[in-house]
Amino acid sequence: MNSFQIDIPDEALRPIIQDKINNLNKPKGSLGRLEELAEQICMIQQTLSPSLARPCHLLLGGDHGIEREGVSVSPREVTWQQMVNFTRGGGGVNLFCRQHGFRLRIVDVGVDYDLSEVDGILNRKVGWGTRNFLYGWAMTEVEFERCFMVGRELVDACADDGCRVMCVGEMGIANTSPSSIWMSLFCGIPLADCIGAGAGLHAEGVRHKKEVLARAVEHFQHDCPFPTDTDIIRYFGGYEMVTAVGVMLRAAERKMVVLVDGFIMTACALAALRLHPAAKAYMVFTHCGDESGHRRMLEALQASPLLSLGLRLGEGTGALCAFPLLDSAVRMVNEMNNFDNAHITKYF
Amino acid sequence: MNSFQIDIPDEALRPIIQDKINNLNKPKGSLGRLEELAEQICMIQQTLSPSLARPCHLLLGGDHGIEREGVSVSPREVTWQQMVNFTRGGGGVNLFCRQHGFRLRIVDVGVDYDLSEVDGILNRKVGWGTRNFLYGWAMTEVEFERCFMVGRELVDACADDGCRVMCVGEMGIANTSPSSIWMSLFCGIPLADCIGAGAGLHAEGVRHKKEVLARAVEHFQHDCPFPTDTDIIRYFGGYEMVTAVGVMLRAAERKMVVLVDGFIMTACALAALRLHPAAKAYMVFTHCGDESGHRRMLEALQASPLLSLGLRLGEGTGALCAFPLLDSAVRMVNEMNNFDNAHITKYF
Repeated sequence: MNSFQIDIPDEALRPIIQDKINNLNKPKGSLGRLEELAEQICMIQQTLSPSLARPCHLLLGGDHGIEREGVSVSPREVTWQQMVNFTRGGGGVNLFCRQHGFRLRIVDVGVDYDLSEVDGILNRKVGWGTRNFLYGWAMTEVEFERCFMVGRELVDACADDGCRVMCVGEMGIANTSPSSIWMSLFCGIPLADCIGAGAGLHAEGVRHKKEVLARAVEHFQHDCPFPTDTDIIRYFGGYEMVTAVGVMLRAAERKMVVLVDGFIMTACALAALRLHPAAKAYMVFTHCGDESGHRRMLEALQASPLLSLGLRLGEGTGALCAFPLLDSAVRMVNEMNNFDNAHITKYF
Repeated sequence: MNSFQIDIPDEALRPIIQDKINNLNKPKGSLGRLEELAEQICMIQQTLSPSLARPCHLLLGGDHGIEREGVSVSPREVTWQQMVNFTRGGGGVNLFCRQHGFRLRIVDVGVDYDLSEVDGILNRKVGWGTRNFLYGWAMTEVEFERCFMVGRELVDACADDGCRVMCVGEMGIANTSPSSIWMSLFCGIPLADCIGAGAGLHAEGVRHKKEVLARAVEHFQHDCPFPTDTDIIRYFGGYEMVTAVGVMLRAAERKMVVLVDGFIMTACALAALRLHPAAKAYMVFTHCGDESGHRRMLEALQASPLLSLGLRLGEGTGALCAFPLLDSAVRMVNEMNNFDNAHITKYF
């Protein structure tokens, strides 16, 4: 179920794309990162006339057993309260989806609260919050597979509707904790360097979080001395996180542009790339936040994000804020004159 | 003529603005730079409900006598050719104005070519290119005043039409040269550190540019041993640059948000702030480019730009690309729920 056929974009087209971009009416390279973005999007879509049609944002919600250990500044019920709030249009994610024309789907994949009667929330609940990974596996194998199935189905619904850009965000109190552990285990970076303040812990709280997560990793190494990548993902991951991994992989399989933003989504991208490195060609890293370790994780991925605005709200807001830059890049390719039709002396 | 009554925004409103932003439905500070932007825009407009209505972009074109010294990779005629190209909609500036809903006005303030018959170019010609400042003043006092008058008139036409956001860009072959000199003289940074490749000079070209500009500054110091800020601006400045200074100051006087982007426009902002430091409160620094010295000039201004995308096209494209972030900031203030109406446990 977690196997995907992800094609590496055909390199044959790259020089032709570069030639088109270089011959647009501007000094070569003078639109900087926009030119790189344009090239990437053209490569993903294997075209000289790219499109960002019908962008979709999947906001995935889930709770975490580890929240019981006091690793987050906010209590678990904030997850469902925010999910409900998103249906009313007043959250950060709502604003930016409206601003940039994204269709927003709010999906309960693992919130510890009954949201099935709430209009505007898609019910794909895999469980009522994960188990506490301080004492064992956060999710079962069946749940793990179910997350991938849900991710696949969500992407397919968007893709079948003509969507070419997939954005994914999360709402899940305590989900910086599993993200930090994934980062540490996948990048080989000491755990303490991967742990930050989340949504606003003070120094004492961060110390406690470090201690709890270190114990969890110790238990894991005892439970599972020779872990596969899948083991690491399943032992610690939240339902919303594993679903996001599935979303990213299915979107890459369907040759969509995949927007990756904050700390948690970058950890999910990291997990996705452990399973399928070819997915990297489809990912645009959009934002580097302030969460301790985010920059190091991006470096490990050799990714240079488009924005660095100090955002740490989550919900995919960084990715949404970066979208106009993709749009600029695509307009450049599609609408800018070239030197021939602009009648400009070509001087470089 | 170059005196402006620029009010410093009333600080009394700041705590009330901050309180509104802090009580929006998000962890405090979690929207990072967007929160700072929102605060700045609210302060400029002295309101809790800011607006970015009817944004305008003024693209100012002018030629430079110093171009005759071979300091630019491109020949002078590219200025008028590009001005004409902009009227056809195929330039970088056109794309991004369309994308972000900016009204674009293309203004000839000093191009060395007759553009008076070209539809879509506003004729405000102050001269047919400046004099070569290697041998004396680039413009006369009358021309200098005329640039400020034009800037004032252009801003007033926008403001009277309801515009709250003023963006300004330039087209002028060789205008990195006077910009480098302004930077050096205003910031006290050695001239060689202020000079870069412009639109694409090679190493030999940069060496030549450094030598020419050093000679020009020597002559200036001989001609004008005790220069005022105005002397520095007038001796070296291009018509489009001095007009841009006037635009920035008049826009600040009229309490508009002023978008400042690349190397040349940052040099113009620097000149504007030498004349009227109060204008700083109205300026949003949008982009840090690759031109050598741009970062140092921004540091001297204590400005941290929103974007760093390696753009070096000019025309105000960096500012236009940053506009959606201002829009996000304003939407945040105007549309985001606060904790009371969102029914979320306030936990921080």
